[in-house]
Amino acid sequence: MSNDPGQRLHVALVHHPVVNKIGETIGSAVTNLDLHDIARTARTYGVAGYSIITPYSDQQELVAEILDHWKTGHGAQANPARKEALECVDIKISLDEAVDGLQKQYGSKPLLMATSAVPGPKRLGYRETRAKLDKGELILLLFGTAHGLAKEVMERVDYLLPPIQPDSDYNHLSVRSAASIILDRLLGEGRDE
Amino acid sequence: MSNDPGQRLHVALVHHPVVNKIGETIGSAVTNLDLHDIARTARTYGVAGYSIITPYSDQQELVAEILDHWKTGHGAQANPARKEALECVDIKISLDEAVDGLQKQYGSKPLLMATSAVPGPKRLGYRETRAKLDKGELILLLFGTAHGLAKEVMERVDYLLPPIQPDSDYNHLSVRSAASIILDRLLGEGRDE
Repeated sequence: MSNDPGQRLHVALVHHPVVNKIGETIGSAVTNLDLHDIARTARTYGVAGYSIITPYSDQQELVAEILDHWKTGHGAQANPARKEALECVDIKISLDEAVDGLQKQYGSKPLLMATSAVPGPKRLGYRETRAKLDKGELILLLFGTAHGLAKEVMERVDYLLPPIQPDSDYNHLSVRSAASIILDRLLGEGRDE
Repeated sequence: MSNDPGQRLHVALVHHPVVNKIGETIGSAVTNLDLHDIARTARTYGVAGYSIITPYSDQQELVAEILDHWKTGHGAQANPARKEALECVDIKISLDEAVDGLQKQYGSKPLLMATSAVPGPKRLGYRETRAKLDKGELILLLFGTAHGLAKEVMERVDYLLPPIQPDSDYNHLSVRSAASIILDRLLGEGRDE
């Protein structure tokens, strides 16, 4: 097994296209804590990169300002650990741009993966996904904001991870919690202790 | 194994006594998203209850107002799933009050557990902790805000869970992420899929 299974795993938080609670395709606003929490988790587990995907220029500027504050501004001195986490974050205007960027960086197209709380085809288990990472396969794992990724994104992904807690009668984790749990299932070391 | 291993697991988020970044004992302010995210995770995994521990009356009022908005106010209609999650939340003025409340409710004192990112004595692994839950033992699992639980709390706990990612060179998960990962390690169903 690789000593660093996260080195070919990238994550992205998609703000468009996602769906609202009645299933309409929308774009969502970036949430400050989504940046911080998921960056901290990604950094803890050695994930290679974390992209914020939004097509809206005002939202891109907001993210850039937040990153700037923590990476080079006052925040960098006040909280160097936060600077370190946010250094893995970048901004992409679309899923296409994120995929193209990885293809340029690595010379190969990433496998596109996502999660779904509802049963469906194209499942790939946590262990199988980890095995792909251990073999050096490049994976871009998508998380959806609002009420989840739009159908057009779901149709594009190569594989879906299994639901997090399939028998639960409650299925409303925050995306911050879902991302943390999934990265732990894929890359966690001490889970079986 | 119990069909409902979370039914004797309670979690609490401690706002006092915790430490700041230079190790001084402080009380921290309640964060809205700590309430929501951890309640949603607790509800997903079937945890029996989630207590917000703060000795400050203004903070208790703030929490009560937030809970009221989502449980009986406008939020309850706008987002019934959030209402359902927040129904497991209560407010305690101290760890003693939380422990006494559980003792009254169940007729026995809970095992006090916490997490620590640094090695130390009194370790109990995730599997061993789960085995206690399956046997019906009552556990109160503490999470610290700010830079973690104060020494006086750590000395009181019966057991510490192992560090989440012991070999990581970065050890700054948000408490929301840490709580999600730990509840998944203790109660997650599909982890090995």
